Amino acid sequence: MLRSKPLNDGLLAAVDMGSNSFHLAVARLDHGVIRLTESLSEKVQLAAGLDENQMLSDESIERALACLSRFSQHLAGVEPDHLRIVGTNALRVARNARRFTLAAQEVLKRPIEIIAGREEARLIYIGASQTMAGQGKRLIIDIGGGSTELIIGERHEPLLTESLHMGCVSYSQRFFGDGRISPEALNRATTSARQELASIARNYRELGWDVAAGSSGTMKAMRNVICSLGWGTPEGHIPADAIPKLRELILSVDDISKLELPGLKEDRRLLIPAGFAIVSAVFASLHIETLTFVDGALREGVLYDMLGRYGEGDVRDRSIDSLQQRYGIDRDFSMRVCDTATELFNQLQSPLQFDEDHLGTLLRAAQLHEIGKAISHTGFHKHGAYLLLHSDLAGFSNPEQEVLSLMVGSHRRRLRNENMESLRSAGGEKLLQLTLILRLAVLLNHSRSRDDIAVPRLRSDGEHYRIDFEKGWLKAHPLTLADLEQECSYFNSASLKLSVH
Amino acid sequence: MLRSKPLNDGLLAAVDMGSNSFHLAVARLDHGVIRLTESLSEKVQLAAGLDENQMLSDESIERALACLSRFSQHLAGVEPDHLRIVGTNALRVARNARRFTLAAQEVLKRPIEIIAGREEARLIYIGASQTMAGQGKRLIIDIGGGSTELIIGERHEPLLTESLHMGCVSYSQRFFGDGRISPEALNRATTSARQELASIARNYRELGWDVAAGSSGTMKAMRNVICSLGWGTPEGHIPADAIPKLRELILSVDDISKLELPGLKEDRRLLIPAGFAIVSAVFASLHIETLTFVDGALREGVLYDMLGRYGEGDVRDRSIDSLQQRYGIDRDFSMRVCDTATELFNQLQSPLQFDEDHLGTLLRAAQLHEIGKAISHTGFHKHGAYLLLHSDLAGFSNPEQEVLSLMVGSHRRRLRNENMESLRSAGGEKLLQLTLILRLAVLLNHSRSRDDIAVPRLRSDGEHYRIDFEKGWLKAHPLTLADLEQECSYFNSASLKLSVH
Repeated sequence: MLRSKPLNDGLLAAVDMGSNSFHLAVARLDHGVIRLTESLSEKVQLAAGLDENQMLSDESIERALACLSRFSQHLAGVEPDHLRIVGTNALRVARNARRFTLAAQEVLKRPIEIIAGREEARLIYIGASQTMAGQGKRLIIDIGGGSTELIIGERHEPLLTESLHMGCVSYSQRFFGDGRISPEALNRATTSARQELASIARNYRELGWDVAAGSSGTMKAMRNVICSLGWGTPEGHIPADAIPKLRELILSVDDISKLELPGLKEDRRLLIPAGFAIVSAVFASLHIETLTFVDGALREGVLYDMLGRYGEGDVRDRSIDSLQQRYGIDRDFSMRVCDTATELFNQLQSPLQFDEDHLGTLLRAAQLHEIGKAISHTGFHKHGAYLLLHSDLAGFSNPEQEVLSLMVGSHRRRLRNENMESLRSAGGEKLLQLTLILRLAVLLNHSRSRDDIAVPRLRSDGEHYRIDFEKGWLKAHPLTLADLEQECSYFNSASLKLSVH
Repeated sequence: MLRSKPLNDGLLAAVDMGSNSFHLAVARLDHGVIRLTESLSEKVQLAAGLDENQMLSDESIERALACLSRFSQHLAGVEPDHLRIVGTNALRVARNARRFTLAAQEVLKRPIEIIAGREEARLIYIGASQTMAGQGKRLIIDIGGGSTELIIGERHEPLLTESLHMGCVSYSQRFFGDGRISPEALNRATTSARQELASIARNYRELGWDVAAGSSGTMKAMRNVICSLGWGTPEGHIPADAIPKLRELILSVDDISKLELPGLKEDRRLLIPAGFAIVSAVFASLHIETLTFVDGALREGVLYDMLGRYGEGDVRDRSIDSLQQRYGIDRDFSMRVCDTATELFNQLQSPLQFDEDHLGTLLRAAQLHEIGKAISHTGFHKHGAYLLLHSDLAGFSNPEQEVLSLMVGSHRRRLRNENMESLRSAGGEKLLQLTLILRLAVLLNHSRSRDDIAVPRLRSDGEHYRIDFEKGWLKAHPLTLADLEQECSYFNSASLKLSVH
């Protein structure tokens, strides 16, 4: 039904009425990727409005409807079949959910779905997998306000989906309702979470995964706190050994109001002890060693599911493709630079001990090195660096974007000391070496002509670079000669050595 | 012949073998505009190689051929019918030009044209007019190494074209060959230039013009020096009263090697006394009051002429259109913001004394306010400001781009003090007021729905802004209400006043 009209014409929208927060996302299909035009979140805390009889309080219904009435102004321009409004656990369990949904439909003038836990898990996986790069099986853990979804999948296919009745809002009420923090309360919450997990842990461990990732607010807060404390991995992930340290820190106060954690937003503090209990149970039950944070979740899943297009292969390739389209990259040319870069890389791979990941990084930088030209030819390497640092690029982590940005920003003109320092600190000597290979590959293609390229012999011990051309070639190519003379002087000023023969 | 194959597929190239510098430009058609992919200039100083018998010296021919051999590597990938190589005055007058062109054709493997002065003038006008905004007749003055072209035209049509035998290189040799500066030498050079101009000045003054602009290196150097000395107009143009002041400064030394002018590149110094003499003669003969600098010249003219598409109307509209395409702007939406902005503007036009130019500025900012979303939804106003500041935008001067950049960068979120100061210093209190109108227009369209907009009554004395809605409208539109409450607090923090009723 969706594909009956061109999607470019219209907006897509998703409303996620979660147990803790309500989210609105409005997006457009732009150069092949979904691009948010509006994104709102409000802490409605619907689950906190559930009483012991699983009835939503009048007050929480009012809060929720007021939020939806604010969202509704954004939905007026969205075609009905480009919109999906989903409710999750708090509405699954509320006995008076229908009272709310009828009133909500009145406000939104659109049908509302309360989706099952498995459907929620499927959609979360679609959303998360859209933003994850690389191969292999993925475990996604999404801790919500009222439920926690766990999914193992491969590429865009969920293989195992579960939804457990534990969430940071419901656990906060159940175990930390008095605002006190104690080892007993924390143990009770953790034990309860482990009990929930016990029923599924063996299945999950048997299927196994290559990467474990967490999504949504609780996981994001946990990652931010742990990284702010300096306990994260260099890539910004949560290692298992951060869990007992954070436990100790949380137990150093006896009241949630005294909990001062770096990197923590005020409105998240109340939910931290319960959220931590669930996270620590997940680490323990599933024997997780490192947990990545991933941006996409339910909202994104709903949007991509509506679109019916998940794409194949590495999501990073799709992101690169989209950038190349938008910025009008000459793809034939960038492919030639990739070819030259690969040949140069192969010559240095064993002396400089590069691995396949290094080649991937080099080629992505080669594919994108010209995107800044769309802004201006003057200083285009700097504009490219800006775009790569700041663009939303599905599949790339922030450190990966920083690496690409640094490489593209240093691929021509002077080798500035501050750039070389940044390259070294982001990826060691190897990243600097890859950047030098990129520079030479671009230089050798300066004429932009397919027929005009010689890939010379390149040798290096990591300090001295030596290029040998076939006899007579350089003389017949004075531009390349002039470029290489300039490059030698750039190397020199940067305390590097390049010689050309 | 060009349009037989899609231009998107290929590169366009122009080589301008000028009397002072040789230029190479390689470009592609991208989102409807010509975009440079390569741009090289070398100071070949061909005219300096002409002896008293108008013969090019062997040495100057060698210099020129070496430069072309460096250029030639760039031309290998360009289809023959997408390339034009033109020679100008030094080759027009050299009696042994054919010796050079035969050797040059050998190097470039492409035919070379020596174009007539009028054809040069026509192409210069096309190149310059591509980058000039606004209506009315234009006078373009291009001082080259060996000749000076003067053109009056309207839109993309040259009406009057002339090429005079005076240039900064030939005049340097003739009047300042010994490197000395004296009132006598400067007077002789100026008088000679006035004699050249005498034959055409009356015709030009009779046809008249609305804007006078200079192009190419001499004019650029003159503009840079005058602006660096603080003698330029606030918009960065050259006023007539800067001419006698610069004359005095040049005459304060007796040797060109002692000439130290701020903003002057070393390789331009030698040509300054002669260039200044021609410029001052132009001001005097044509009674010019203010002279603008314009970027485009012969190279750009050759490229656009090959393309056969000059476009109609204001070139700024084409630049905006191209940006909207590239960054996937929702044009329906931006038109609605323009409509709202116009209605708000009309209400304040007479109390705040806006003119039509102010409306133009406001609408251009409204058309482009969302371009940063293509980079990321997070902080998109900042990304938009970056793009507008750094992009090559034909028809916009640097100060105009800065104004757009500041408006877009301040169109949402907090009204930062530094931004308000920048707005005031770039365009006074009125620019700040236009930015506030833009903010309100965007806010009122926040729901992005055509059916959901009320344009309220807006009143202001320039300090206090008061908005009145029809009774009941705001209550029915809680998002707008929440946005306006937020906006009132932003105004407040910025020591402005906004009240909503």
